[in-house]
Amino acid sequence: METTQVKAYGTATPAAPLHEIIINRRAIQPHDIEMEILYCGICHSDLHQVKGDFGPFAAPIVPGHEILGRVTAVGAHVKNFKVGDLAGIGCIVDSCDNCEYCNEGIEQFCDEGVTFSFNSPDKISSGHTYGGFSKAYVCNERYVLKMPAFENLAAAAPLLCAGITVYSPLKHWQAGPGKKVGVLGIGGLGHVAIKIAKAMGAEVTVFTTSPEKVEDAKRLGADHAVLSKDDTAMAAYARKLHFIIDTVSAKHDINTYLNLLRHDGTVVLVGLPPEPLEVVAFNVVMGRRSFAGSNIGGIAETQEMLDFCFKHNITAESEVINIDYVNQAFERLEKGDVKYRFVIDMASLS
Amino acid sequence: METTQVKAYGTATPAAPLHEIIINRRAIQPHDIEMEILYCGICHSDLHQVKGDFGPFAAPIVPGHEILGRVTAVGAHVKNFKVGDLAGIGCIVDSCDNCEYCNEGIEQFCDEGVTFSFNSPDKISSGHTYGGFSKAYVCNERYVLKMPAFENLAAAAPLLCAGITVYSPLKHWQAGPGKKVGVLGIGGLGHVAIKIAKAMGAEVTVFTTSPEKVEDAKRLGADHAVLSKDDTAMAAYARKLHFIIDTVSAKHDINTYLNLLRHDGTVVLVGLPPEPLEVVAFNVVMGRRSFAGSNIGGIAETQEMLDFCFKHNITAESEVINIDYVNQAFERLEKGDVKYRFVIDMASLS
Repeated sequence: METTQVKAYGTATPAAPLHEIIINRRAIQPHDIEMEILYCGICHSDLHQVKGDFGPFAAPIVPGHEILGRVTAVGAHVKNFKVGDLAGIGCIVDSCDNCEYCNEGIEQFCDEGVTFSFNSPDKISSGHTYGGFSKAYVCNERYVLKMPAFENLAAAAPLLCAGITVYSPLKHWQAGPGKKVGVLGIGGLGHVAIKIAKAMGAEVTVFTTSPEKVEDAKRLGADHAVLSKDDTAMAAYARKLHFIIDTVSAKHDINTYLNLLRHDGTVVLVGLPPEPLEVVAFNVVMGRRSFAGSNIGGIAETQEMLDFCFKHNITAESEVINIDYVNQAFERLEKGDVKYRFVIDMASLS
Repeated sequence: METTQVKAYGTATPAAPLHEIIINRRAIQPHDIEMEILYCGICHSDLHQVKGDFGPFAAPIVPGHEILGRVTAVGAHVKNFKVGDLAGIGCIVDSCDNCEYCNEGIEQFCDEGVTFSFNSPDKISSGHTYGGFSKAYVCNERYVLKMPAFENLAAAAPLLCAGITVYSPLKHWQAGPGKKVGVLGIGGLGHVAIKIAKAMGAEVTVFTTSPEKVEDAKRLGADHAVLSKDDTAMAAYARKLHFIIDTVSAKHDINTYLNLLRHDGTVVLVGLPPEPLEVVAFNVVMGRRSFAGSNIGGIAETQEMLDFCFKHNITAESEVINIDYVNQAFERLEKGDVKYRFVIDMASLS
């Protein structure tokens, strides 16, 4: 298959520093658009994949799945994009588009499994996909988002993963006026959850282990922020919340949070702690509570989320970096030393 | 307070055999009915309480919370019962009747905690409650069920706990036509769940560790029965079920069952395993699945369940025993040696 050479940052060796490499993007197919990448967010799962935490990767790996850019070419059958349009690509770049799940707009659960924006077999090129730590991307327009003209474009890139990951469960579990919503953990996901839940009209309480984040949570719009080690403060929330979005990716105690739920309340996990989480039966049986999970969102819902965030002026708190800082950024990310999302200015890769 | 002496079976010593004792029932209050107990089911939680598994009990303890009888006297303000009526008492005999939960008809989650039919402080007599292993009960009519004229009255008694425990979640999670429902475990709860789910119109698949229960599940009405150790048979159900009711009270692996759920499916625990259950994050995150719990049901829903079971000719498969067999019945219950519920014929206590 015809390909185009594109500059990227990647590595062939697990956990090794990323460095500049050349990758081959497939030639534009009739339904494809080609995008010049302007910004790419850095998500913790980029780091996990590079380290091999989710298993061996196809080498070389080029991470990045919060990809924002401008359309530079379109295939013959492309209907919804034209050259010059702002566009976004998130986690999903292909699916069977034929199963019940795809038809329902929840492609993330596609029966055949989706093609992720990096480190997935590419059904068209027969190679594997390369992510957004690169200069250009080629993707079927069905999986490309129309990017509203955010004033701060760089800060909008993380919405493509972090945004949809929290928007989807907040909407599914009906965060809104009259609802008391908890946010567990303030990081890349949690800080966006605060903003979106507030914009949906919910009363938002943040739970954090970091005293310095209590004030920051309020700055971000939370109505209340509670230090989770403070038993007295925690006790005041017993049986009070309708819904808690749990953004913590490490092993942690969820029973404490199940007990903050009203009857029929749900703790929804959006992180992927590597170790199993323990649920004490009593804490779900009493109050008919649930411990659930949620994974990104479908393409249509991602578009809805972008339009919602644009309308409500929501972006991620972002530290914009040059590509040659990416390995330091990974190190800082691992220590939780970022408020709250790194975004790479891809103009720095030239 | 004036009291009446009533014969009962109980013990003052944890785990000791039950024997005949005399207890004092409170005098009938204006809203109370008095009931001669005809039959009382034996639930595993009776045994747990007698053994002190749920903590120390108020001595003496008289278990029994599947209480079926005939009204023998009514207080001055009783509206819905008259002498001679068949009546039932389940787990709940009092609540605050004032909180949001009580007003919503989910008294089981009452803000102040409910008064259980045995081993709970009695707000009126200032003593504690004694259960249905006795000749008579006195209870506010608000918590008394109208008992339809089941042909086999003894076999209807277990519906008052086992029946509502499975009916409530099956209804809440909308088991019905077009829904594929799993039942995990065939015992006192599971065998009633099969019957009720079928009567609701669902396609029912039973999962059991016992080869001899595979055939029995089908006799009870299950469409399919799967030996859970058979990996090939299990694999055929991956992502197929809408809902699984988990009646297992011992520690067990729920991840296997989470993976049998379609997207947005729920495993609902109705047992109370003493050890925490481990949930692998991936199994809830993928497919937006839930691990939930459910605890009995409210009074109005219990009445609805009784009427439903009467209409559909559903009772528990019961082994009727005399009261002097109760200690042997407990031993057999502990070994799972009952198909599927012991019911005491209270005429044998005289």
